[in-house]
Amino acid sequence: ASANQPGAEFPIQNLPFGVFRARGATRVGIAIGDQVLDVVAAHALGLIAPDAHDAARACHADALNALMALGPHARRALRAAASELLREGGAGEAHAAHVLVPMREAELLVPARIGDYTDFYASIHHATNIGSMFRPDNPLLPNYKYVPIGYHGRASSIVVSGTDVRRPRGQTRDDAQRPPVFGPSRRMDYELEVGAFIGAGNGLGTAVPIGEAEQHVFGLCLVNDWSARDIQTWEYQPLGPFLAKNFATTVSPWVVTLDALAPFRVPATPRPEGDPRPLPHLDQGTDAATAGFGITLEVWLTTARMRADNAAPFLVSRGSFADMYWTVSQFVAHHTSNGCNLQPGDLLASGTVSGPAKESRGCLQERTWKGTEPLTLPTGEVRTYLEDGDEVVMRGWCEAPGRTRIGFGECRGTLTPALAG
Amino acid sequence: ASANQPGAEFPIQNLPFGVFRARGATRVGIAIGDQVLDVVAAHALGLIAPDAHDAARACHADALNALMALGPHARRALRAAASELLREGGAGEAHAAHVLVPMREAELLVPARIGDYTDFYASIHHATNIGSMFRPDNPLLPNYKYVPIGYHGRASSIVVSGTDVRRPRGQTRDDAQRPPVFGPSRRMDYELEVGAFIGAGNGLGTAVPIGEAEQHVFGLCLVNDWSARDIQTWEYQPLGPFLAKNFATTVSPWVVTLDALAPFRVPATPRPEGDPRPLPHLDQGTDAATAGFGITLEVWLTTARMRADNAAPFLVSRGSFADMYWTVSQFVAHHTSNGCNLQPGDLLASGTVSGPAKESRGCLQERTWKGTEPLTLPTGEVRTYLEDGDEVVMRGWCEAPGRTRIGFGECRGTLTPALAG
Repeated sequence: ASANQPGAEFPIQNLPFGVFRARGATRVGIAIGDQVLDVVAAHALGLIAPDAHDAARACHADALNALMALGPHARRALRAAASELLREGGAGEAHAAHVLVPMREAELLVPARIGDYTDFYASIHHATNIGSMFRPDNPLLPNYKYVPIGYHGRASSIVVSGTDVRRPRGQTRDDAQRPPVFGPSRRMDYELEVGAFIGAGNGLGTAVPIGEAEQHVFGLCLVNDWSARDIQTWEYQPLGPFLAKNFATTVSPWVVTLDALAPFRVPATPRPEGDPRPLPHLDQGTDAATAGFGITLEVWLTTARMRADNAAPFLVSRGSFADMYWTVSQFVAHHTSNGCNLQPGDLLASGTVSGPAKESRGCLQERTWKGTEPLTLPTGEVRTYLEDGDEVVMRGWCEAPGRTRIGFGECRGTLTPALAG
Repeated sequence: ASANQPGAEFPIQNLPFGVFRARGATRVGIAIGDQVLDVVAAHALGLIAPDAHDAARACHADALNALMALGPHARRALRAAASELLREGGAGEAHAAHVLVPMREAELLVPARIGDYTDFYASIHHATNIGSMFRPDNPLLPNYKYVPIGYHGRASSIVVSGTDVRRPRGQTRDDAQRPPVFGPSRRMDYELEVGAFIGAGNGLGTAVPIGEAEQHVFGLCLVNDWSARDIQTWEYQPLGPFLAKNFATTVSPWVVTLDALAPFRVPATPRPEGDPRPLPHLDQGTDAATAGFGITLEVWLTTARMRADNAAPFLVSRGSFADMYWTVSQFVAHHTSNGCNLQPGDLLASGTVSGPAKESRGCLQERTWKGTEPLTLPTGEVRTYLEDGDEVVMRGWCEAPGRTRIGFGECRGTLTPALAG
């Protein structure tokens, strides 16, 4: 299968976890090619190795939380059992009719009950670009290189890939000489992000040392942190974004484990000469050599007219998760450094992933430079921000010499018109 | 019973809902004097009126969410049934041994599974005081009188009254000429707030009109939004407070229903001449005449030495929830105006309740004016911010001519030392 075919993202080297509804039941499953392994069915047939039985039982659920809570050992045992089952000549072949469900027949759900959703701001390119639009003389605030800046987002409005997103209404004030107005946002944007799902949690009042942080991470997914820039500009001071973000956040349905990502680890971005060394509780020491993830990330756009024309999606940007200033381990260590308790299923998103090049900027606010550098699409249509009917698809994948490519699948959503006023 | 005796806050006119653990079971209960009505037991004995059976069944749970989801009609039916049962000469007297549990024998829990916690900033006195410390020339930002400013808080670290709170560690930078340091916060504060629990929710993509907002509110409680001011100062730009707040938030265990509060409604604070009228989606029209709540709110402090001396608690401040610039209805209408979905059990806190007088300022940052006006306690001890061992107790109560006084009970917490580094 070519890399562009459905299922090519999920070879046996990947085996991401998700939640699917099929044949009247909702369960945890594992993606393999264009199929879903029904772990519960496989367990019932005696096809799961004994050391993965606890993990398999935790798959009898409509969310990954119970499996996540078991920690990395259980996750690895189940992944190994699935790998053994699904290998060429494995027991899965004889029992395929019972344990495999075609992905096209399955409804994929938000993979976890997300108790708390935190959004970071970990790309220094993004922070500098956005900052320079609002504060040309002082784009990057003094805390940025010391603090992995983050804030709490809204958990209730997290939806799974494929869910339509309604354009929000809200207060905006483009003209400071006139009162604000209430109506549909006119500067709708996406934000390309990577999300880390928490596995085992930590107790309230305890901190996770940076060296142990990844033991608390189950895996990664793609996140579209939809943003209404005009609402954000008016509301965000002094307490941060609120209605500009909390109307919807889209996640991809498959959680790619840290185990599958192990061959694609890269060094954390080196800090430029002159940048401060992280404070000790955020200092990864020699672990920095493998603290990054070599994930290529893409944003594709299809307008309503392109859909009508059967035109191919337009590649808006391509960047890399390796370009972040702060790492996932630093997210966890920082978040818990004050004793805040993370729980299984919590989602820690990275903030917009932007690289140094214009073509790697992960939101339209940056990509079109606040609307001053519109994109021209193959249809001749022009975009500064999103129009109703626009579909945004985010993709992520990993490649390395001698390794089988793995992918994240899609994080997809179409913007629909605002409700009438 | 005098108003200062335990239980005097919960006359039959109040009947707040909570969750209690006693005799090996965890259930929803109703406070009555110094007892808890076990609704499940009363239902099993046939003591609940038929129109409250659905609501009574929803009390067989370890959280109020199911009852909250049923909406105001079910809540009122159950409250009426409890009132009939508990009146003098009611069926509760003969069955008291089966349906009443002494509150001192019950463990009270966080009353709901709080999916999302939102914190507003609705006292213009608080916003102006805090703003003037950071921006003396421009204390109130231009959006304040148009937008009920709010942000997302942390749900996982919400604890019930009586839970100790550990002093957080975090990054601070008091001297801009030197790098930040990591260690225990040295400017620990409380924030006196009122919380609104959401009853029936709204669907994603739909908005709750302001005139229907209170149909989505189950009741109110007290909230202590513990804050580390030194961490907050360094971290909060540009995305708002994060680690300065998310280490702990304390709620009182009893949720006082809007029904019990009905006799104590007051007009929304009139907007001063020259202030803008709220935009239409936030305009309460004639409902403004009863949109406020006449709740007196107090903060009491007991230091470790005062406890050792058996000294009476020190009254730090007394204010009123009637002094807020934005109302609970406006919180709900604003929060959902972009289609954000509220869910049963969500908590919307008011932000610090401060009035115009110095004695009504609801946090130490204001009460001691950033530490420049220390409080002297009866023991001769001096406080700017909280010291380890300090116990903060918040109380709230309502009085009106010809009405029986009702109370909220306590929101209590003691600050314990930070973990060793």
